[in-house]
Amino acid sequence: MLFHVRMDVAIPHDLDPEVRADLVAREKARALDLQASGVWPELWRIVGEYANVSIFDVESNDALHDLLASLPLFPFMSIQVTPLATHPSKLGA
Amino acid sequence: MLFHVRMDVAIPHDLDPEVRADLVAREKARALDLQASGVWPELWRIVGEYANVSIFDVESNDALHDLLASLPLFPFMSIQVTPLATHPSKLGA
Amino acid sequence: MLFHVRMDVAIPHDLDPEVRADLVAREKARALDLQASGVWPELWRIVGEYANVSIFDVESNDALHDLLASLPLFPFMSIQVTPLATHPSKLGA
Amino acid sequence: MLFHVRMDVAIPHDLDPEVRADLVAREKARALDLQASGVWPELWRIVGEYANVSIFDVESNDALHDLLASLPLFPFMSIQVTPLATHPSKLGA
Amino acid sequence: MLFHVRMDVAIPHDLDPEVRADLVAREKARALDLQASGVWPELWRIVGEYANVSIFDVESNDALHDLLASLPLFPFMSIQVTPLATHPSKLGA
Amino acid sequence: MLFHVRMDVAIPHDLDPEVRADLVAREKARALDLQASGVWPELWRIVGEYANVSIFDVESNDALHDLLASLPLFPFMSIQVTPLATHPSKLGA
Amino acid sequence: MLFHVRMDVAIPHDLDPEVRADLVAREKARALDLQASGVWPELWRIVGEYANVSIFDVESNDALHDLLASLPLFPFMSIQVTPLATHPSKLGA
Amino acid sequence: MLFHVRMDVAIPHDLDPEVRADLVAREKARALDLQASGVWPELWRIVGEYANVSIFDVESNDALHDLLASLPLFPFMSIQVTPLATHPSKLGA
Amino acid sequence: MLFHVRMDVAIPHDLDPEVRADLVAREKARALDLQASGVWPELWRIVGEYANVSIFDVESNDALHDLLASLPLFPFMSIQVTPLATHPSKLGA
Amino acid sequence: MLFHVRMDVAIPHDLDPEVRADLVAREKARALDLQASGVWPELWRIVGEYANVSIFDVESNDALHDLLASLPLFPFMSIQVTPLATHPSKLGA
Repeated sequence: MLFHVRMDVAIPHDLDPEVRADLVAREKARALDLQASGVWPELWRIVGEYANVSIFDVESNDALHDLLASLPLFPFMSIQVTPLATHPSKLGA
Repeated sequence: MLFHVRMDVAIPHDLDPEVRADLVAREKARALDLQASGVWPELWRIVGEYANVSIFDVESNDALHDLLASLPLFPFMSIQVTPLATHPSKLGA
Repeated sequence: MLFHVRMDVAIPHDLDPEVRADLVAREKARALDLQASGVWPELWRIVGEYANVSIFDVESNDALHDLLASLPLFPFMSIQVTPLATHPSKLGA
Repeated sequence: MLFHVRMDVAIPHDLDPEVRADLVAREKARALDLQASGVWPELWRIVGEYANVSIFDVESNDALHDLLASLPLFPFMSIQVTPLATHPSKLGA
Repeated sequence: MLFHVRMDVAIPHDLDPEVRADLVAREKARALDLQASGVWPELWRIVGEYANVSIFDVESNDALHDLLASLPLFPFMSIQVTPLATHPSKLGA
Repeated sequence: MLFHVRMDVAIPHDLDPEVRADLVAREKARALDLQASGVWPELWRIVGEYANVSIFDVESNDALHDLLASLPLFPFMSIQVTPLATHPSKLGA
Repeated sequence: MLFHVRMDVAIPHDLDPEVRADLVAREKARALDLQASGVWPELWRIVGEYANVSIFDVESNDALHDLLASLPLFPFMSIQVTPLATHPSKLGA
Repeated sequence: MLFHVRMDVAIPHDLDPEVRADLVAREKARALDLQASGVWPELWRIVGEYANVSIFDVESNDALHDLLASLPLFPFMSIQVTPLATHPSKLGA
Repeated sequence: MLFHVRMDVAIPHDLDPEVRADLVAREKARALDLQASGVWPELWRIVGEYANVSIFDVESNDALHDLLASLPLFPFMSIQVTPLATHPSKLGA
Repeated sequence: MLFHVRMDVAIPHDLDPEVRADLVAREKARALDLQASGVWPELWRIVGEYANVSIFDVESNDALHDLLASLPLFPFMSIQVTPLATHPSKLGA
C-alpha cells in the first residue's frame, strides 16, 4: 500500500555540531536500511530545499508511523503523509 | 530529468455531458500514450480527491510544459510542478 | 485500518432542484448502507457547516478511495483524508 | 456533548531532557486517567506527525477548556477545537 | 453555554431578485425571533463586509447547529463556530 | 464605539519564571481595572487556546491602541482588531 | 478618526454590459462626492489590480460602514478595514 | 526601473469561443508590441500553468499600471507586481 | 512616485535591553529625519499591533530600498511594499 | 534551461557577528563567481526585503540543486524554485 510522504528538515542552527553530524549520519544509515528492506521505494530531493518527496510501501498506517518515527531526524522534521490509490488511467492498471 | 507534478481536476458541473465524456476519454487515451512513451513513469490517484500525483521524466522544462499543455483536461486542471534532484541518501545514488 | 475524513459539501445553487433532491436522498441511502457494513464507524456533523467528520475502517487505500468515489455527492464534495495510527497513550493500547 | 480536538505538540528542542521526560510521563498518566473517566472516548495518532485527533465528551465548553488546560503538555501544544453535532445520516440517529 | 459565530454571506448575483428579497426578509424575521428568545444575545455587523459576528447562548452543540441551519440564508453563508469558556480574568468571574 | 479584539498569547518558554508570574499577575490586575472602567465590556476564553475574544467600547482608535498597548502582556501577544457596527437585524436597533 | 481600507473589485464577467457601465459610472460619481465631503481623503490604485487602497476619516464605525455600503459597487467588492492610530514617530505628533 | 510581474490567466470556460479567440489574438499582438518597444524585456511561461513571469522596465508606477491595464486579457488575469532594486551582489553592480 | 509600505516589527525578547532601547531611539530619529525630507509623507500605527502603514514618495525602486534598509530596525522588520498609481476616480486626478 | 528562484534570507540574530560577516562575504564571492560562469544570468533585490529573485540557466535539476546548496547562506535561506518555459508570445520565440 503506497503513501506519498513529504519531509521538510529544520535542524536548529544552535544544535551542537557533533550532535548534528551524528544525527545526519544515523539518518542516512537508517534511510539506506529502510530502502534496502523494500518499504521506501522512492526518495527524491526537492530542488533548492532541505526536503524530500518519498514513496513508502507498507502494510498499514501503524507500520508507516513506526517507520517515520524511527528516523533519527524525526524530531526535526515536518512530515506530511498522503495516501495513494491506483489511478484508473495508469498503464497496466 | 524528473519532475513531481500534482494535478487537481475541476470540470465545471454545467459542462455538456457529452463534451465531458469525450474530454475524459481523450484524457485517458493521451495519458496511456504518454506513459507508454516513457515520459510519465509514475501516476497515482490521491485518495478521496479528483487529483493525481505524477512523476515525469523529460529532457527539458519546455518539453514538460508541452506535454502538460497537450492533455485534453489541461484547461480544467490546476497543476503544480516541483523539480526533483537525486537524493544523497538514495540507495544506489 | 482507520482514516480520518473530512467532507465539505458544495452543491451549486443553480442545480435542478429535483436532481439535487435525488442526489441527497441517494447520498443518505448510500451512507446508511456503508455504515451498516462496518466500514464507516463514525459520522458527525460539524456545527454550522454543511460538512462532516468521519472515521473509515478499511483494508487499504484503494478500498477507501473506491468507497468515497461511490458517494453520489462525491463530485460536489471537497474531501481531505488523514491516515490514523494507534496512539501510545490510548487506554488499552 | 462531543468535540473534535486536534493537538499538535511542539516541545522546544533545548528544554532540559529530564523536564521533558517528566512532562511526557505526566501527560501520558493524565491522558489515561481522563480516558478512564469517560470524557476522552477517542484518541488517535496522526501518521507521521507529533499530533493527535481526539474526541471529547463533556458537559460544557468550560469543562472542556479545564480538561485541556490540565494537560501537562498544554503550554507546548497548539489545540484546535471543533464542536460536533448529530449527523442526520448517522445510522441509528 | 456561549459560542462565538462568524457568518459571511455570499448570495449569488444571478439569483432571482424576488427570491433574494424574500430570503433576506425571512432571514431578518428569523434573526429577530431568535434574539427575542434569548439564544442569540449579541449580533454585530463587521464594518465594510456582508458579515456578522454573533454570540449564541445554547444548551448544546446540537441545539446550535439546528438554530444555524434554520436560518433562511444558511445555504449562502460560510459559518465559523468557536466555543467560548469563562475567562479567569473576567470581572466577576 | 465597539471593536472586536482577538488576543493570542505566546510567552517564550525560556522567560524567567518570576518575570512571567509577575507579568501574568499584572495583566490580570490591569484587565480587571479596564473592565471596571467600562471600556472592556466582554472577555471570553477561546476553548483549548491561550487566547481570548474581547469587545472594547472606546471613544476612538487612538484610545483603543493606548489601552491595548498598556497591557503588560502586549509584547507577547498577537492582536487582531475588527471594527464593529450596528447590525440592521439587531433586536432593538 | 482614520481607517485604512482596501477594496478589491470583482464584477462578474456575465453581468449585462449596460448594468455594468451604469454601476461603474455611479461608483465614480459617488466616490467624487464622498471625497469632496472630506470623509475619503486618500484614494490610490494598486498597480496591476482592479483594487484600491483608501484612507477614510469618519466619526465612528457606524459612519464608515454606512459610507462603504452606499457605494454602488459594494455588492461586488471584497473590503478589508484596518483602524489606524497616531504613530509615536510621526513628525509633528 | 524594473518590476517583477506574475500574471495568472483565468478565462471563464463559458465565454463565447470567438470572443475568446479574439481576446487571445489581441493579447499576443499587444504583448509583441510592448516587447518591441522595450518596456517588457522578459516574458516566461510557468511550466504547467496558464501563467507567466515577466520583467517590466518603466518610468513610473503609473506607466506600469497603464501598460498592464491595456492588455486585452487584463479583466481575466490576476496580477501581482513586485518592485525590484539593484542587488549588491549583482555582477557589475 | 508613491509606494504603500507595511512594516511589522518583531524584536527578539532576549535582545539586550540597552541595545533595544538604542535601536528604538535611533529608529525614531531616522524616521523623523526621513519625514522631514519629504520622502515619507504618511505614517500610521495599526491599532493593536507593533506595525505601521506608511506612504513613501521616492524617485525610484532603488531609492526606496535604500531608505528602508537604512532604518535601524530593518533587520527586525517584515516589510511589504505595494506600488501605487493614480486612481481614475481620485478627486482632481 | 531556465529556472525562476526566490531566496529569502533569515540569519538568526544571535549568530556570532564574525561568523555572520564571514558568511555574507563568502556568499557574495560565490554569487559573483556563479554569475561570471553564466549559470546565474539575473539577480534582483526585492524592495524592502532581505530577499532576491534570480534566474538560473542550468543543464539539469541536479545541477541547479548543487549550485543552490553550495551557497554559504543556504542553511539560512528559504528557497522556492519554479521551472520556466518559452512563452509563445515572447518576441522572437
